[in-house]
Amino acid sequence: MSTTTIPVRTPSAAYDVHIGTGLLATVGAQVDALLNGALTSGKQRVFVVTSPEIDRLWGTQLDASFPTPPIRLIIPAGEQHKRFSTLERITEELAQHGADRDSVLIAFGGGVIGDLTGFLAAIYMRGIRYVGVPTTLLAQVDSSLGGKTGANLAAGKNLIGAFHHPIAVFSDTATLATLPPAELRAGLQEAIKSGIIHDRALFDFMETNADAILSGDQAALTHVVAASVRVKAEVVSADEKESGLRMILNLGHTLGHAIEATTNYRQLLHGEAIAWGMIAAIAIAARRGTVTPAEAASMDAVIRAYGPLRPFTADAAELVALTAKDKKNRSGTRSFVLPVGIGSAVVVRNVTEAELLEAATAIVAEASAMLQVPA
Amino acid sequence: MSTTTIPVRTPSAAYDVHIGTGLLATVGAQVDALLNGALTSGKQRVFVVTSPEIDRLWGTQLDASFPTPPIRLIIPAGEQHKRFSTLERITEELAQHGADRDSVLIAFGGGVIGDLTGFLAAIYMRGIRYVGVPTTLLAQVDSSLGGKTGANLAAGKNLIGAFHHPIAVFSDTATLATLPPAELRAGLQEAIKSGIIHDRALFDFMETNADAILSGDQAALTHVVAASVRVKAEVVSADEKESGLRMILNLGHTLGHAIEATTNYRQLLHGEAIAWGMIAAIAIAARRGTVTPAEAASMDAVIRAYGPLRPFTADAAELVALTAKDKKNRSGTRSFVLPVGIGSAVVVRNVTEAELLEAATAIVAEASAMLQVPA
Repeated sequence: MSTTTIPVRTPSAAYDVHIGTGLLATVGAQVDALLNGALTSGKQRVFVVTSPEIDRLWGTQLDASFPTPPIRLIIPAGEQHKRFSTLERITEELAQHGADRDSVLIAFGGGVIGDLTGFLAAIYMRGIRYVGVPTTLLAQVDSSLGGKTGANLAAGKNLIGAFHHPIAVFSDTATLATLPPAELRAGLQEAIKSGIIHDRALFDFMETNADAILSGDQAALTHVVAASVRVKAEVVSADEKESGLRMILNLGHTLGHAIEATTNYRQLLHGEAIAWGMIAAIAIAARRGTVTPAEAASMDAVIRAYGPLRPFTADAAELVALTAKDKKNRSGTRSFVLPVGIGSAVVVRNVTEAELLEAATAIVAEASAMLQVPA
Repeated sequence: MSTTTIPVRTPSAAYDVHIGTGLLATVGAQVDALLNGALTSGKQRVFVVTSPEIDRLWGTQLDASFPTPPIRLIIPAGEQHKRFSTLERITEELAQHGADRDSVLIAFGGGVIGDLTGFLAAIYMRGIRYVGVPTTLLAQVDSSLGGKTGANLAAGKNLIGAFHHPIAVFSDTATLATLPPAELRAGLQEAIKSGIIHDRALFDFMETNADAILSGDQAALTHVVAASVRVKAEVVSADEKESGLRMILNLGHTLGHAIEATTNYRQLLHGEAIAWGMIAAIAIAARRGTVTPAEAASMDAVIRAYGPLRPFTADAAELVALTAKDKKNRSGTRSFVLPVGIGSAVVVRNVTEAELLEAATAIVAEASAMLQVPA
């Protein structure tokens, strides 16, 4: 088994992200080693937070890697469970099981499990440790690292949360084999994003090897995950609290989040919404000249190659209005990420409503036209 | 108006605590100055989190200090509201009012308001700023500084929370005039604690000036609050995350928390429970010889002078069992704070169940005997 290890070093945390095929079977022993044998000696305890489905598919393998099988805390799958009520239930369960400040949580699942478990670890007894074991591509390439944790309000997604880094992340690409194909494709959009904003070689690799990657080739997937993690690790290490550089990770997210909000987070996967958002951002960049028409066409084509893009209906003006509510806005100023060539990006604050509306109108037109299936 | 300013400097925060009579009338202008005039210019917004009672008594005065009256978010008084449900309601209200990452919360009230508001600020959009304006003695001398924020679970008090420091604290001792006498006395127990663990001069001042302090003399109260804040600021600055020294702040809290838990947090005020806990801790210290019999008698007498101690009934063995669940315990080892003479304290991990049981039995006997009112 070959494993790639990528260090994340921020002012407040230092941890390693391990990526490889078959890593799951080693997680328990590696966590025990991180805790200086405290699991074997019984001095400290781990609690696995996971979904029923991941537990069924991969739980036995994870359990077997520990000296004794850890206690499980189950959260049903789905964004609708990423709420205060779940935080309350799980923290009460942790307390009932006697979890203390030395206990460690394992976030075993996709983005919802990862975000919630990180947030649970951030607030339980004012902060305990957690380990990420992401099982979806989106979680492996994006949400499992960087320390952003959180939950949703009725008023919006991820409006509550904390910065709290894991002590280690283990990304087993073998778990991607049980991922629904649409989720794999959606997750790959975030990898494309990583290439566009910070890693031309990753973008080129994904352009050239789309077939292998989309068919689940383990070597190709491991390469994509590792390169994406390296991009995020570099950006997050340079700007932990999102004061500047880190915002480039939000390419496609301004309109992407608006699309998710207007479709009630139900019609599109996160990566599918981000794909539309990137297409719009690329169009604005092309119009402004931060990318050439050829570069824009190339990026646009790769995003579509990892599609198909998912249709939706929305009102373009409403999408633009929703971007005014973006959590990244400060003191009323709207932030927007534009690609600069392929492999670089910039955060600007002067994108106008007119530019946004033009780009939003184009994607809404295309997305809704897809719903008019020809007879 | 004379104001004492005490700096708190920790690895993660630097802020000033201002203590004085009549400070309330200056809060708005001072917060505006801290934000470089962003309130006057309308670039940033403040939200006041408070209770109906404090709002009625002091809200007008606070409002008048701001360029425009801030929006109010009301939390009913009482520990029973320090829960997830309140966090959810207030975060939703913040979102509906358009609070963003530059918005600032004002914690205007006692300990419950302070703990909740700090926690709200810690988790709203992964962290916004807040200012403490504590209006109870307990909050002024203790809970408003140090960065400990949180809420309760059914399973126990303060089991969720975060370390999140205010950007400033304004303690107006004039607000103590509307405090119920029992709350003033209970808060003074935490000041006595500060003297015992770290400031012999404060202890002596409280021993000598009990009458002036208990009658609400502003100069005497300001001296006590400032000295107590200085103790906490020094301890917290030296040990932000409670890995060692900071634990001495918990003198009397091990059994005090157990008493609160066994009486369902309803019969005794926090400071009243801590008073009993300190009496027990002093007895253990006297038996171990870390304090002389004369020192123990002196400390015991001062605690009682700021009483009367509030009666309660409990099972001593159950109190001891509850201390095993203390949040400060790590990997199953019980921590306990013992005074060393007057003005110093130490954290030990070898206090036995027998020692605890003996001390608990003594206070339970005294506390329950007080309920047998003579005919």
